[in-house]
Amino acid sequence: MRVEIWSDVVCPWCYIGKRQFEKALAGFEHRDQVEVVHRSFQLDPSFPPGETVDVADMLAAKYGMPREQAVEMNRQMEKRAATVGLEYRLEGGRAGNTSDAHRLIHLAAKHGLQDETVEALFKAHFTDRRSVFDHDSLTEIAGEAGLDAATARETLSSTAFTAEVEADQREARDLGATGVPFFVIDRRYGISGAQPPEAFTEALTRAWTDAHPTLTTIGTPSETCTDETCTP
Amino acid sequence: MRVEIWSDVVCPWCYIGKRQFEKALAGFEHRDQVEVVHRSFQLDPSFPPGETVDVADMLAAKYGMPREQAVEMNRQMEKRAATVGLEYRLEGGRAGNTSDAHRLIHLAAKHGLQDETVEALFKAHFTDRRSVFDHDSLTEIAGEAGLDAATARETLSSTAFTAEVEADQREARDLGATGVPFFVIDRRYGISGAQPPEAFTEALTRAWTDAHPTLTTIGTPSETCTDETCTP
Repeated sequence: MRVEIWSDVVCPWCYIGKRQFEKALAGFEHRDQVEVVHRSFQLDPSFPPGETVDVADMLAAKYGMPREQAVEMNRQMEKRAATVGLEYRLEGGRAGNTSDAHRLIHLAAKHGLQDETVEALFKAHFTDRRSVFDHDSLTEIAGEAGLDAATARETLSSTAFTAEVEADQREARDLGATGVPFFVIDRRYGISGAQPPEAFTEALTRAWTDAHPTLTTIGTPSETCTDETCTP
Repeated sequence: MRVEIWSDVVCPWCYIGKRQFEKALAGFEHRDQVEVVHRSFQLDPSFPPGETVDVADMLAAKYGMPREQAVEMNRQMEKRAATVGLEYRLEGGRAGNTSDAHRLIHLAAKHGLQDETVEALFKAHFTDRRSVFDHDSLTEIAGEAGLDAATARETLSSTAFTAEVEADQREARDLGATGVPFFVIDRRYGISGAQPPEAFTEALTRAWTDAHPTLTTIGTPSETCTDETCTP
């Protein structure tokens, strides 16, 4: 079975959803036969590369609210994250273009380090308040995830995996996703959002049953030979 | 999609069923994406190798009927075969152990000539009244199906593919088959007997739909980010 997870590095529900999914997977009987693939989804692909903004400022501007209210919204998110065991430290957090981070995740997939890299990027952004936008910081995070730092830097300096990032994004839209996290199991079941582990367990169980069907009989058995004295 | 067809070389309903299936397949929109695999089923694996008996004598003995009645049953089968465009000439037909014929079919699969060989064996047995039991005749039939005659003879002289023939037989029983022909589509749909083309069409269509599912949504979408101003 194959679980594809579309997420963005700066999406707070994605990190939380990843934990919810992982909890369901850990309790799933056939977890050894489940392959997890991370896919790219940019919440704002048009964000000018190289620039960043303060998340609370952005929230305040978008909703026309006092900055203090935006900060309070972030505090609520920190509390929600804590319920799944994640430490979010959102004050002073910045938003930016995540294309480079996603290209790094595609590089990591080639080296069997995709999950480690996704995890390192989430932690860097939401817990450690490190940049997931500039190449120096991304190279460092990649190194900590186990990737060769020189290879990571070379990839970031090039346009490698740009097409893959865009293809992932298109595929999510084609599958009907309008936001992330978006989980797809065997291209058969879709789960939108950081739903409770029970939803993931249900999807995993249904997909498993589908993948291991019992034979459905079509029509009425007739005109069959059961031994060599087969007669009309 | 993968269609597996269990049959025995001496099973009159199998050749007829093959034609019914082929008629359905020819009219199936996605026929180019259907792979057909023939599998072995021996109606009487305990039949002494090297020996053969007259089919009408066997029928008469089994059912305690006059030989003439058994001959008449064969005539009915010839008429039934004619309705699907097959010429059966059953008078004087003989039964025997079909293990060698099945081993030949497995050899043919390795050379991409499986269907040709199954077809040649059916025609030899039911239409041309040639032996599908002795090695000389089997080698000749294999050659006509496009196989290298020397390779065929060598295979027949050895015990090659005996395990494969037995494994096919076990697998059919595991899937619930008690007779042949037995058709299985994507290990999802089973069809017993020489059913009308409509039954095969239904099975092909349902299997196709299963193999190309639309996404089923699990749970209620929640806690999703749709842009970078993602809020709790």
